[in-house]
Amino acid sequence: MIVETIAVGTELLLGHTINSNVARIGTRLADAGLEHQYSTVVGDDHGRMVAAIRQALSRADAVLITGGLGPTQDDITREAICAATDREMLYSKEYADRLRRWWAARGREMPDSNLRQAEYPDGAELLDNPKGTAPAIRLEVDGKLIFALPGVPAELEVLLDQYVVPSLRERSGEGVVLSRVIRTYGKSESRVAELLADVFEQSGNPSMAFLASAAEIKIRLTAHAATAVEAEALVAPFELAVRERMGSLVFGVDDETIEHILLGLARDKGWTIATAESATGGMVASRITSVPGSSKVFRGAIVAYQEDVKRTNLGVGSEVIEEHGVVSEPVAIAMADGAAEALGADVAIAVTGSAGPETLEQAAGTMVIAVHTPEKTMARTLRLPGDRERVRTYTTTGALHLARLAMMGEWWSGQPKSGRWV
Amino acid sequence: MIVETIAVGTELLLGHTINSNVARIGTRLADAGLEHQYSTVVGDDHGRMVAAIRQALSRADAVLITGGLGPTQDDITREAICAATDREMLYSKEYADRLRRWWAARGREMPDSNLRQAEYPDGAELLDNPKGTAPAIRLEVDGKLIFALPGVPAELEVLLDQYVVPSLRERSGEGVVLSRVIRTYGKSESRVAELLADVFEQSGNPSMAFLASAAEIKIRLTAHAATAVEAEALVAPFELAVRERMGSLVFGVDDETIEHILLGLARDKGWTIATAESATGGMVASRITSVPGSSKVFRGAIVAYQEDVKRTNLGVGSEVIEEHGVVSEPVAIAMADGAAEALGADVAIAVTGSAGPETLEQAAGTMVIAVHTPEKTMARTLRLPGDRERVRTYTTTGALHLARLAMMGEWWSGQPKSGRWV
Repeated sequence: MIVETIAVGTELLLGHTINSNVARIGTRLADAGLEHQYSTVVGDDHGRMVAAIRQALSRADAVLITGGLGPTQDDITREAICAATDREMLYSKEYADRLRRWWAARGREMPDSNLRQAEYPDGAELLDNPKGTAPAIRLEVDGKLIFALPGVPAELEVLLDQYVVPSLRERSGEGVVLSRVIRTYGKSESRVAELLADVFEQSGNPSMAFLASAAEIKIRLTAHAATAVEAEALVAPFELAVRERMGSLVFGVDDETIEHILLGLARDKGWTIATAESATGGMVASRITSVPGSSKVFRGAIVAYQEDVKRTNLGVGSEVIEEHGVVSEPVAIAMADGAAEALGADVAIAVTGSAGPETLEQAAGTMVIAVHTPEKTMARTLRLPGDRERVRTYTTTGALHLARLAMMGEWWSGQPKSGRWV
Repeated sequence: MIVETIAVGTELLLGHTINSNVARIGTRLADAGLEHQYSTVVGDDHGRMVAAIRQALSRADAVLITGGLGPTQDDITREAICAATDREMLYSKEYADRLRRWWAARGREMPDSNLRQAEYPDGAELLDNPKGTAPAIRLEVDGKLIFALPGVPAELEVLLDQYVVPSLRERSGEGVVLSRVIRTYGKSESRVAELLADVFEQSGNPSMAFLASAAEIKIRLTAHAATAVEAEALVAPFELAVRERMGSLVFGVDDETIEHILLGLARDKGWTIATAESATGGMVASRITSVPGSSKVFRGAIVAYQEDVKRTNLGVGSEVIEEHGVVSEPVAIAMADGAAEALGADVAIAVTGSAGPETLEQAAGTMVIAVHTPEKTMARTLRLPGDRERVRTYTTTGALHLARLAMMGEWWSGQPKSGRWV
């Protein structure tokens, strides 16, 4: 079953509001095995709304419209549905009474403009909105379904879950869609695609896609089948092939972030974690502490931004700094050892570097990461392209991944000295 | 001039990624006085992409396509443009050489698949992408413009600002658009709108809009005029009226972030800054160090996530913790004083709190901020709604704003004890 979505609202086109509803609907349609082929944003303009609804009806089996159901003059989704499907607008005295009771129960008198919410296209069904006053609308036209839903996320979600998705699934009689995301780190998107070129060639159901986000490459497998078991059976051999090919580059699946994986690994080993940061300025610690429950594992951090703080608070020797410079592997190692000592942690992640702009001594984007574990301490130098924020973000992600490898005993000696290390 | 946007990517329809680019483009088009009539999301499907491009060309003067320019097999925007406009794909040996040099400069060999990024539709111009390897594409078809742009936000933004918007504005032959953003903190969006209701009534050219982002409210004035001088003359009296009404709630204009303002204030006074963080886990330090040159002012941070780290590394007395609890104003004050001492800073910002999930002792979202200056140290308790990430982000922003007020000597005594303090 093919579904299209239309989001109504000039504020979405002006960029005042981010259209997050399309993702809200998209995940639910995917989970329900319904195919979401197009999503259109249109302003509060009668002619363009009518055109968008007519076009969606011409291509899809069901059309979900969000927004434009409020009480004000610019809320014209009801009118646009009537015009697009050539039908009259009716008025529900019953719903009008219900609206009056809703307002009375809150000790307020209802503005007359709200009576617009009791209007509906001939043939439509009004669906109760448990979280607001705008009822949703369900209309069947020539065997196709139209749903008009409020744009307020909390109202939309409850209506999707209670009415819309069950109704579409019943109508579709189709099976399920299963998505599996395999998360990797250490190779570029193009290198991952090359490594998996022959697997990609054989894909179809499941389909296969590569997604790059902040130095991590995700491989998404999406299967359509009659049942969850069959979908799983379609995905399994592809997942296995990807895992065999990618080896320890794979660090997690689906929603597992590197912070989650790292904290889980520390809990399994009974280790605590600390960080010592210069150029990343606390970003590694922020990422780790974004996970609820990280306080059981994470001790703390020392952000040593000025040089004497590295000496005083992390015990980095002046002679090490003088001999090698602040952005060097010996200094990063001394920072990691110093943080483990000062903060009483089993594992310490240290970052020193120059994130930009460039200085005379050091090209921007030279970042050194060191990891201290009960086994040993090792450092790695990265040269990263891009601006300050990108360099800092990629370094933070890199530091978390390097710590994962170190904690698993997969040190990176023997690898090339710069660039990606896996 | 009418513009349509098309976002390419199955991940947007599946809800794996929120389509924030439409807002990114929308604000820029609105500021430039260009009309954004439709925005369509389409998956990585050749036939549907071709249909979407053809339709947009039939309705608009310019079409901006984002995404699908990467090096992998599912990136087919280039092919879809060729098919939609009936033209051949060519290959730029010059750009291929440039790609090879980009990779070589990073000490890496370029995967062959990246050569796809040197392909372009006949008649198109390749636009340099200063932040990535995918060039943008500009193509003129029957007097209409097509731009294909990378979907990565940082790459998209720089290309929009450098090429796309100036090019569209030149083509549109319209006058100048001037935008001034006045940044405020301390009142809700609806309260700001109330305070400025009569100013808003008189607006038109310039238009006036309120934008809320992470606890800050921005007031955007946008004027259209024949020349920059005339536009400035239209904006000036409205900016003055807003500033008079809002007073010290205004902390900056246009691109001035609170971190920039704070660092400027510290430089003016010859003061250094440090932070002591528990629940924010280094986020305050990360924000401050995101500004190039912050190393001249920022000393460092101690993230004291576990209780004994607060005692050992920040010198918070056990008796203070026992008497008041870890999430308390006396502990925040002791952390700020301890950080100033341990890190040798004139100003120290401390955060302790519970960002969630809730515990038996403490409701989630109770956050305490303290600021130490050479004058004194004071604390403030906030109760914030929302999930862990929202609480942490709002607290970080709040801590930076409180530090600004404290450094200006505008302490917050006499203000209500919880909630917003200004």
